[in-house]
Amino acid sequence: MREKLVAVIGAGVCDAVVATAAERVGASLAEANFGIVCGGLGGVMEAACRGAKGAGGWTVGILPGARASDANGWVDIAIPTGLGEARNAIVVRAAAGVIAVGGEYGTLAEIAFALKFRLPVVGLDTWQLQRRGADDAGILRATDPVMAVKLLLDAISKIDELPQSN
Amino acid sequence: MREKLVAVIGAGVCDAVVATAAERVGASLAEANFGIVCGGLGGVMEAACRGAKGAGGWTVGILPGARASDANGWVDIAIPTGLGEARNAIVVRAAAGVIAVGGEYGTLAEIAFALKFRLPVVGLDTWQLQRRGADDAGILRATDPVMAVKLLLDAISKIDELPQSN
Amino acid sequence: MREKLVAVIGAGVCDAVVATAAERVGASLAEANFGIVCGGLGGVMEAACRGAKGAGGWTVGILPGARASDANGWVDIAIPTGLGEARNAIVVRAAAGVIAVGGEYGTLAEIAFALKFRLPVVGLDTWQLQRRGADDAGILRATDPVMAVKLLLDAISKIDELPQSN
Amino acid sequence: MREKLVAVIGAGVCDAVVATAAERVGASLAEANFGIVCGGLGGVMEAACRGAKGAGGWTVGILPGARASDANGWVDIAIPTGLGEARNAIVVRAAAGVIAVGGEYGTLAEIAFALKFRLPVVGLDTWQLQRRGADDAGILRATDPVMAVKLLLDAISKIDELPQSN
Repeated sequence: MREKLVAVIGAGVCDAVVATAAERVGASLAEANFGIVCGGLGGVMEAACRGAKGAGGWTVGILPGARASDANGWVDIAIPTGLGEARNAIVVRAAAGVIAVGGEYGTLAEIAFALKFRLPVVGLDTWQLQRRGADDAGILRATDPVMAVKLLLDAISKIDELPQSN
Repeated sequence: MREKLVAVIGAGVCDAVVATAAERVGASLAEANFGIVCGGLGGVMEAACRGAKGAGGWTVGILPGARASDANGWVDIAIPTGLGEARNAIVVRAAAGVIAVGGEYGTLAEIAFALKFRLPVVGLDTWQLQRRGADDAGILRATDPVMAVKLLLDAISKIDELPQSN
Repeated sequence: MREKLVAVIGAGVCDAVVATAAERVGASLAEANFGIVCGGLGGVMEAACRGAKGAGGWTVGILPGARASDANGWVDIAIPTGLGEARNAIVVRAAAGVIAVGGEYGTLAEIAFALKFRLPVVGLDTWQLQRRGADDAGILRATDPVMAVKLLLDAISKIDELPQSN
Repeated sequence: MREKLVAVIGAGVCDAVVATAAERVGASLAEANFGIVCGGLGGVMEAACRGAKGAGGWTVGILPGARASDANGWVDIAIPTGLGEARNAIVVRAAAGVIAVGGEYGTLAEIAFALKFRLPVVGLDTWQLQRRGADDAGILRATDPVMAVKLLLDAISKIDELPQSN
């Protein structure tokens, strides 16, 4: 059975508030029967995986380096790409949608790819984007982890209802 | 728990004899509690996934294109990379070892990467490599699917016993 | 002699005002003896290459597809990667610095990678980035093409003066 | 003007006999007005670049790492990809044809990709490939550097004469 994945993206180092949010996101996605795909390292990635595993879910880590042992301890399936930062494109391609929790420049690249690929993107305390002085409407904004997951799953289900899904 | 993966590689189109061998390889790996990673398409890849699923196993497809829907029907976790043939490097990096069943030039590239990365490689009716008139010793040769899996798992277990595994 | 490259990034389709700016950027970089590296396609990429060639410069196109013939007519050296959007990471890695002219989500990914790689980035009517309500200071802002090139070359020369350049 | 590139591939460490052959290949290609594309590192890559530069040619290095400074001293245009070994696919995609001089497993991966992409491949003391006991006819065999370049340029010119070149 083809499994459904959501990407949880964010920085490899983060404070406890952000980690708690990411862990809640991971747990909520697992409860909704989605797998987690992420960059496989620490910070937000690790917290989301830990949350998913605690809720009976499962996790995929698409790593920048060449060693599976780089993955955090809650990654079930480690894919060491050896591609460096170019692996960010793959993290989002593998997902039906993306939740960004906080984040630095790597997260920004993943948000950009996700929007380019027309995937739903939900942001929780993450980057805001403006062009010519106006906010870009691409990122759906959530104010807490449960709302983030709800917004994303609603957006994914709307796409699945289209005559020709991607 | 970190899952262990073996890559099964081979052509995207193959005859029934090769497909039967690949299916047996997939089933034997599943029985040994290994997941299958492959290129996610048809032929040998599809047969190996079908064999694994029939034996209660699970499968990962690292796809060259950008759409999860390109994956064959026995892929559980589809990773559409959008990288084209460069994804061959990732298929083998994700694995603890590689079994090649038949195969064309794409398979040859994967064998080469696996040998470069010092992974055990078992060949079943696949490419033979010579340098300066002498056979390259890199590929372990099997004459049937059960022997192929046994040879590979023996080679993997020897690596795992090393003081510092790769 | 190792050639120095600057990346000019922007959308594959753009209006005449943006194209004129990109062409001026390309010409100014060529006059300063920098080669242009870009994504190799139309819009801002084509305009920058045309500007560079008109000023006696030279150009490299790092293409997403697999065919050199996808490159615009002012690309001297076409590198068809077959990597899809993941090639954006390579466009910026190849450069000593980046000038963004306008731009859509692909440009945003390139800006993000450039900032991640600690390359100087100059923006001309491009994305604005905010985190937690504050502007991100990563992008140097220019108001015209000549200023954009001057800002970037100043930033590059400061990096080159460091004891250990990257 | 779109420049034409030939890939010269081989090991990053090689003996003096192989290096001399690679240098001659590079020089002959430069005399025929082809640029050299290679993996940008030492051994055969460096020798081919040195030969090309000595004959007034020019060179591109598609590097596995993230730093242009990894390139050998005869690379004019360094493209640090950060992709690791996956960059091998790009080295051959960028070329109209490939000459392999000696070579290890990385070279074998490049030969495989080149044959997969239907590029002409000439081998000089390089891998021999067999399937089901028969030699694979994919690699054109040369016995010296001048013959290698002649064979390749003949093969390229035949492709260019096709109604629809690739």
